[in-house]
Amino acid sequence: MTQPLIQRLSIIGVGLIGGSLARALREAGEVGEVVGGGRGEDNLRAAVRLGVIDRYTTDLTQVVAGADVVMIAVPLGAIEAVLRVIVPHLAADAVLTDAGSAKGSVVADVERVYGYIPAHFVPGHPIAGTEQSGVEASFATLFQRRRVILTPLAETSATAHQLIRRMWELTGAEVVDMGVRHHDAVLAATSHLPHMLAYTLVDTLARLDDRAEIFRYAAGGFRDFTRIASSDPQMWHDICVANREQLLEMIALFNADLERLAEAIRADDRAAILDTFQRAKRARDNLYLEPSLPHVAP
Amino acid sequence: MTQPLIQRLSIIGVGLIGGSLARALREAGEVGEVVGGGRGEDNLRAAVRLGVIDRYTTDLTQVVAGADVVMIAVPLGAIEAVLRVIVPHLAADAVLTDAGSAKGSVVADVERVYGYIPAHFVPGHPIAGTEQSGVEASFATLFQRRRVILTPLAETSATAHQLIRRMWELTGAEVVDMGVRHHDAVLAATSHLPHMLAYTLVDTLARLDDRAEIFRYAAGGFRDFTRIASSDPQMWHDICVANREQLLEMIALFNADLERLAEAIRADDRAAILDTFQRAKRARDNLYLEPSLPHVAP
Repeated sequence: MTQPLIQRLSIIGVGLIGGSLARALREAGEVGEVVGGGRGEDNLRAAVRLGVIDRYTTDLTQVVAGADVVMIAVPLGAIEAVLRVIVPHLAADAVLTDAGSAKGSVVADVERVYGYIPAHFVPGHPIAGTEQSGVEASFATLFQRRRVILTPLAETSATAHQLIRRMWELTGAEVVDMGVRHHDAVLAATSHLPHMLAYTLVDTLARLDDRAEIFRYAAGGFRDFTRIASSDPQMWHDICVANREQLLEMIALFNADLERLAEAIRADDRAAILDTFQRAKRARDNLYLEPSLPHVAP
Repeated sequence: MTQPLIQRLSIIGVGLIGGSLARALREAGEVGEVVGGGRGEDNLRAAVRLGVIDRYTTDLTQVVAGADVVMIAVPLGAIEAVLRVIVPHLAADAVLTDAGSAKGSVVADVERVYGYIPAHFVPGHPIAGTEQSGVEASFATLFQRRRVILTPLAETSATAHQLIRRMWELTGAEVVDMGVRHHDAVLAATSHLPHMLAYTLVDTLARLDDRAEIFRYAAGGFRDFTRIASSDPQMWHDICVANREQLLEMIALFNADLERLAEAIRADDRAAILDTFQRAKRARDNLYLEPSLPHVAP
């Protein structure tokens, strides 16, 4: 019988992402023991009850003992504190990875705690998720046909990189390598900025209308926006703080374009208005978009 | 056998909205003959072939002959030209209505062509639709559990109002009366502004990235936005022009809030950032949203 890819996997933060990773690897028969760690004992107990992990501990110094792979799947703002506790207790050959929505801040956290960039650290980011959170929301097929971006550094060992790549491929994901800054720029554009727009739109309308009438007339366009605004505020707060520079740049770019459109509307420049919409539709229709469907938890 | 509500219905613009209205009324057995009119003969031929209308003509002076109800379902920018042709040919007791996404401009068009507001004119707006267009996209259940807003004027006769109300109710829609300005303000907030944001976001990103890479990494948030940006550019151009005043006001409000958020991010004001997101999530989660599901054409 072949050995599973990972004998012992530690997951710190057994939520939607951490839990789904565990489920996917178990279903693939590629993980031996899964140990969960984190703060919320209710969630960890549920994780054991649901068979997502084998055992848990709220003592982070214990959770990484003897682990071959340690996955940090906590909010970005909590990563440094987790690292400070676990780093002295990692096995010599343990591979450390994460699932944070921004990579620059995580790399900085690791460098700050270690004093250098360790060879066994592989920064990663699975582009997947729903507005749900917690282990109860996790499911084994979350990453199928999704992309996972790894941002290996110059210091990252090929072995560690390959292991984490393989780990994610076993969940059904397509793994892509990217530079740290490039990742943060692409995510600022395709994920962080859209979330800022959604939150702002909902907030603007909510403060405008205390009788909730506006929300009653919400149809297609607004509904999509509001779904995004149901996302976890803490997680998105952390992303704003972590990817601050790239996000501010994208907001500025967007603002300039929105102002240009407003100016065209103000000036009744119909050609410019039509042009903007046609260009956007063409971009949307012509460029290849993933055929992945929204994930529905089984 | 009871008489159908409408003996002869003329639909000018047999697209998604006009076509679906015809299908719904036929299925309810509440319309006798449906006559279609418009410019695109291919679409009108298809409408006959699909059984959506009984016959068509590209001569608008003919299409309204003997019609009890005339539905103008063309883009906002085309309404005035249509009115100029058909008004002299409307039957004395014909009821005139429309489906435009803004109401102020349509009322102004009617008043301009007639020289006054006729009693038999009932401005209307079905809050429904998909990104598709044309009669092939139409289906009978489009309006079920959707809202239709009517904006009857002081001059509007109760009989005409009641007829159009009943017509829409027969399609399964919930009919609501509203003032013209109020309608345009609510729609500017819940529909027109979100579309402007979606178009602008796609345009900003498309111009940033000619290698289409950004679009390949589009996941949840961005994908929703891009779907909206697939909407018909001409229709949305017309809405911008028609609802210019309200839309500019909403854009200004939104811009101010986005700038406030950017400032909080710039200043690293974490409490303000978190506050915005929590407020938006609360608004989204607590306020009653229609349980209507996205329509899937049968």
